[in-house]
Amino acid sequence: MKLASKMGLAAAAVAMPTLALAQDSVPGVNASTDSVFILNSLLFLIGGFLVFWMAAGFAMLEAGLVRGKNVTMQLTKNIALFSLAAIFYYLIGYNLMYPLGTWSVEGVLSGVWGPGVLEAVGVTADAADDYGYASTGSDFFFQLMFCATTASIVSGTLAERIKLWPFLIFTIVLTAIIYPLQASWKWGGGFLDAAGFLDFAGSTVVHSVGGWAALTGAIILGPRIGKYKDGKTVPMPGSNLTLATLGTFILWLGWFGFNGGSQLAMGTVGDVADVSRIFANTNTAAAGGAIAALILTQILYKKPDLTMVLNGALAGLVSITAEPLTPTLGAATLIGAVGGVIVVFAVPMLDKLKIDDVVGAIPVHLIAGIWGTIAVVLTNSDASLGTQLYAIIVVGIFTIVTSAVVWFILKVTMGIRVSEEDEITGLDMAELGMEAYPEFSKG
Amino acid sequence: MKLASKMGLAAAAVAMPTLALAQDSVPGVNASTDSVFILNSLLFLIGGFLVFWMAAGFAMLEAGLVRGKNVTMQLTKNIALFSLAAIFYYLIGYNLMYPLGTWSVEGVLSGVWGPGVLEAVGVTADAADDYGYASTGSDFFFQLMFCATTASIVSGTLAERIKLWPFLIFTIVLTAIIYPLQASWKWGGGFLDAAGFLDFAGSTVVHSVGGWAALTGAIILGPRIGKYKDGKTVPMPGSNLTLATLGTFILWLGWFGFNGGSQLAMGTVGDVADVSRIFANTNTAAAGGAIAALILTQILYKKPDLTMVLNGALAGLVSITAEPLTPTLGAATLIGAVGGVIVVFAVPMLDKLKIDDVVGAIPVHLIAGIWGTIAVVLTNSDASLGTQLYAIIVVGIFTIVTSAVVWFILKVTMGIRVSEEDEITGLDMAELGMEAYPEFSKG
Amino acid sequence: MKLASKMGLAAAAVAMPTLALAQDSVPGVNASTDSVFILNSLLFLIGGFLVFWMAAGFAMLEAGLVRGKNVTMQLTKNIALFSLAAIFYYLIGYNLMYPLGTWSVEGVLSGVWGPGVLEAVGVTADAADDYGYASTGSDFFFQLMFCATTASIVSGTLAERIKLWPFLIFTIVLTAIIYPLQASWKWGGGFLDAAGFLDFAGSTVVHSVGGWAALTGAIILGPRIGKYKDGKTVPMPGSNLTLATLGTFILWLGWFGFNGGSQLAMGTVGDVADVSRIFANTNTAAAGGAIAALILTQILYKKPDLTMVLNGALAGLVSITAEPLTPTLGAATLIGAVGGVIVVFAVPMLDKLKIDDVVGAIPVHLIAGIWGTIAVVLTNSDASLGTQLYAIIVVGIFTIVTSAVVWFILKVTMGIRVSEEDEITGLDMAELGMEAYPEFSKG
Repeated sequence: MKLASKMGLAAAAVAMPTLALAQDSVPGVNASTDSVFILNSLLFLIGGFLVFWMAAGFAMLEAGLVRGKNVTMQLTKNIALFSLAAIFYYLIGYNLMYPLGTWSVEGVLSGVWGPGVLEAVGVTADAADDYGYASTGSDFFFQLMFCATTASIVSGTLAERIKLWPFLIFTIVLTAIIYPLQASWKWGGGFLDAAGFLDFAGSTVVHSVGGWAALTGAIILGPRIGKYKDGKTVPMPGSNLTLATLGTFILWLGWFGFNGGSQLAMGTVGDVADVSRIFANTNTAAAGGAIAALILTQILYKKPDLTMVLNGALAGLVSITAEPLTPTLGAATLIGAVGGVIVVFAVPMLDKLKIDDVVGAIPVHLIAGIWGTIAVVLTNSDASLGTQLYAIIVVGIFTIVTSAVVWFILKVTMGIRVSEEDEITGLDMAELGMEAYPEFSKG
Repeated sequence: MKLASKMGLAAAAVAMPTLALAQDSVPGVNASTDSVFILNSLLFLIGGFLVFWMAAGFAMLEAGLVRGKNVTMQLTKNIALFSLAAIFYYLIGYNLMYPLGTWSVEGVLSGVWGPGVLEAVGVTADAADDYGYASTGSDFFFQLMFCATTASIVSGTLAERIKLWPFLIFTIVLTAIIYPLQASWKWGGGFLDAAGFLDFAGSTVVHSVGGWAALTGAIILGPRIGKYKDGKTVPMPGSNLTLATLGTFILWLGWFGFNGGSQLAMGTVGDVADVSRIFANTNTAAAGGAIAALILTQILYKKPDLTMVLNGALAGLVSITAEPLTPTLGAATLIGAVGGVIVVFAVPMLDKLKIDDVVGAIPVHLIAGIWGTIAVVLTNSDASLGTQLYAIIVVGIFTIVTSAVVWFILKVTMGIRVSEEDEITGLDMAELGMEAYPEFSKG
Repeated sequence: MKLASKMGLAAAAVAMPTLALAQDSVPGVNASTDSVFILNSLLFLIGGFLVFWMAAGFAMLEAGLVRGKNVTMQLTKNIALFSLAAIFYYLIGYNLMYPLGTWSVEGVLSGVWGPGVLEAVGVTADAADDYGYASTGSDFFFQLMFCATTASIVSGTLAERIKLWPFLIFTIVLTAIIYPLQASWKWGGGFLDAAGFLDFAGSTVVHSVGGWAALTGAIILGPRIGKYKDGKTVPMPGSNLTLATLGTFILWLGWFGFNGGSQLAMGTVGDVADVSRIFANTNTAAAGGAIAALILTQILYKKPDLTMVLNGALAGLVSITAEPLTPTLGAATLIGAVGGVIVVFAVPMLDKLKIDDVVGAIPVHLIAGIWGTIAVVLTNSDASLGTQLYAIIVVGIFTIVTSAVVWFILKVTMGIRVSEEDEITGLDMAELGMEAYPEFSKG
């Protein structure tokens, strides 16, 4: 229902009931229109910087969950992938995602030095009418962060064995083409949107896409050396759980912007009340996921497992992302709790399948993302289970196929996996010649 | 004077002079009323996510100040306590805190799946009148974070020796009942509010309550093994001072939301100017506390003590919390500086009393909280010293008694302290089987 | 063009075209004027807390890039310098920076306990006219953070060998006098502003000033023992690259407030669209800087260098700071990329000159700051290359001379460098008696 942006009024009318509401409540007085435009833009800016902050959250979470010898590489990947996402979503992705826009070869080329996609400097007050309901710059900034989040999801799963440059090339394809194309089907007013698919802030459009890309990569790449031995899973504990916890708190904070900003409007009483509901629901879903994982690991293993609790909170957040608005607080808590339960069962299940997901991103983003997309039907009567499943499958197949093609081309042409020796040494010294914690001797 | 919320207009008229001001300045034009409603809600949302961020600050501060063998446990406690606070404040606390609301067994039960406490999705513009002066969702989100902060204070003091589950059960009682009940006396328009007690953002209502609960727990729990030996205090240095510093910066940042958001309104010139004063005063009080501790430790010990400087900044923040609005910048700096001085003297004093407060939360939150509550009379002529002391004592006795009852019940029924062997091994391996920094050998 | 504040209308008319625009678009209706005042103040508050957060970013970046034996000291310096900046910019700097204000000995003295510089509590709605276009409290809060940033830049360069107290005394002079005086030339409506110098958010006024002060200090202080041996540069790797990465992400986030807030207004469609452009440009410039450094270090050294990538992102941010509004996204990316290239070449160049800059602050803040100031002429036709160079030189000479005088006086009177023995032992144990990571044995 949400997230279509930067398009003509025709498209907006299709995709954005809220917009209509916003304008209904404004009796044409210029001052008020301005205020709606300003507040909507402000929501995008605040939401955008909060989602930006999630890039730091992924970096810390992943740096904490890999072993010490691969930390520098994981940090390098995270800052590089965000930067590439920023550049390639600008160059190609954003225009691809909103097909009603003015995408063209000339547009892309001229965008580099020409006027680009943003409003001219110092537009006058009446531009509110010309430019739609929020500034294009704020919308672009917000949308970009979603694209970058999708890429961040992939890096954790493939850690500790994938080469830097092939990973970054995959990131470019993902953020320039794969993510924007499928996102346009829903948020660009495409066929999934027309079919009635509901995905408020992207349990499917963002999280499952990152998850499918990660899963495909993990299968093609294979598990880390020594991870599965004689039918057993060998634990490879993360090097720094404070970082992992910090990363989780950062992601939790950023998610208020992720879900709240996806209301796309804050200029009316109805919109701000909805954003408020979303903040409260997002928070309680995370809490539900964390507590479910805490209790479940206590029961199953007799000892609570912090990494499960952290991933439980994140799974709660992913679960509520497809519909953070309509649930009551209680329903949101339970939807999140189911996400936490999913993580506790899915992590060992993946290990049984010998799919090596270093940080647990597949359970958190893919499986909880599917659950969240289905859960929409529990609280939103506009949703149809068939349509939700149809979209999950369509997006899944598309992402698996395109990702697999890219991974295979990379594998054949430049290779995607470091040498056995480098993997054992650790990527930091082997590929970068730099340790993250050079002074601390390894136990 | 502040923080009453979610209630009928009658209660609002009693408890919220600002609300009257807000409405005075709005001549009944709908667009303007909307804008006040939107901006007030936005203040709660921004303030709320900043105070949420404080949960991460406490986690980092405490993880940095405990020894390496207890870090995973401290992180687990922090994320679990926040999650439990979120759920139990929603289930019980919020309704208990605002007695003019619609609390009832049915209400709580139906809140799980029913319409709950938040506005319906997509309320129309004229709802501003029906729903008061800000969205309930934003108010709930903001209030919840205060309740969680209270619980965060307790975990640091009791670190390195308390069992996980009894601690979490205490957290549930604290956030479901103890905090909300006493908070209703002031912020729910109860008898302390009627008596003229002033506590703008909660030096007493939040910080001293957390501090009293921590103190009671510390006495009942007893000090860590080996902390006090032959009449001497044995230093047990924190394992990671960068984390402790990061935690302090996070708390400092979050405090702008804590104090600024407690203005409860941003929709008029007067309110936004007040919020601005509060931001500036909050910042300078922290600076005053830090510098006072820096200079004082240099003088007393010839060497500045970073942990004292960090706690000095936090004590400055707690000190200004009861009245961040009326002081000048100079007065705020000095009020904060006194907080810093308090910390430097109170930390060794507690050790003399053999009260083992691992992170210094009692000096920072309880003693500086008392100071801050008294300091209101210095800059706010509406305050009476007698009333301030009366409230400090009433809240203190209530929290001590209820906390002690809960701690004793827990002690008798399930035990609150880990075994001697587990404490020496460290809670991480003994209770969780997981190290925070598994690769780094201990010195 | 920007950042003049807290002054009479006469000065405002000279220095703030945006203000005029803001008022043009408001047809005198009180409600609307209020809303402009509120939204402008809100921009300062949000921008201010984001720039505050940069203080944490500098602390983490520097703590990560020094060796383990100097971490506690680096943390102490960072929290102390911010606190001193807060106090001395309030006592002296702010009044010095805006010479049209009411600075006087009485004013400073009475400011301590008197009404100070902020609006009275609960000003009425018509105060919007009396008080200008935003609340003084919000403006002060925002301006203060810029002053503190300047001081943060210095601490990294001089790490691992400068004594604590002389460094802090320098910080006081820098934040009370050196920064505010030269800032008044541009942002206080002084002679550089009159000459047509353009520096939107302070590539010169903030970053190069910090950089010049750091450079002067580094030369007078001399390199660390053993850094340059037999004509070679000895690598002294930072102790914790996750912290350095976290610090970079924090700074990146804070920069949205730094540049976006420098629009100084958000109450009209034109202003919010400009703030949005600035957010998008700031982000893409950082991305450009990071990717440029990544590719360049791959080409030059065959191995990407994470610390160069981090500093590349920061250099991209500094480069866009002088003009984040007028460039297209493409131009902003390239301006940032040049910043990244500068870092990769300037870091070894400084080492050749035996100027020991522990964290790379001189390349990032000074050299990229100069580049950014010059780059204004590429996208803003109002800028003149001659004027930009003139301002760079004037500010540079002023800062070098005043800094050198202060450093020399400190050197002669109390000494600025720790003893050789203390430097080898590490400042943490020698000067503070406290280790940052006491449990982790050194490799």
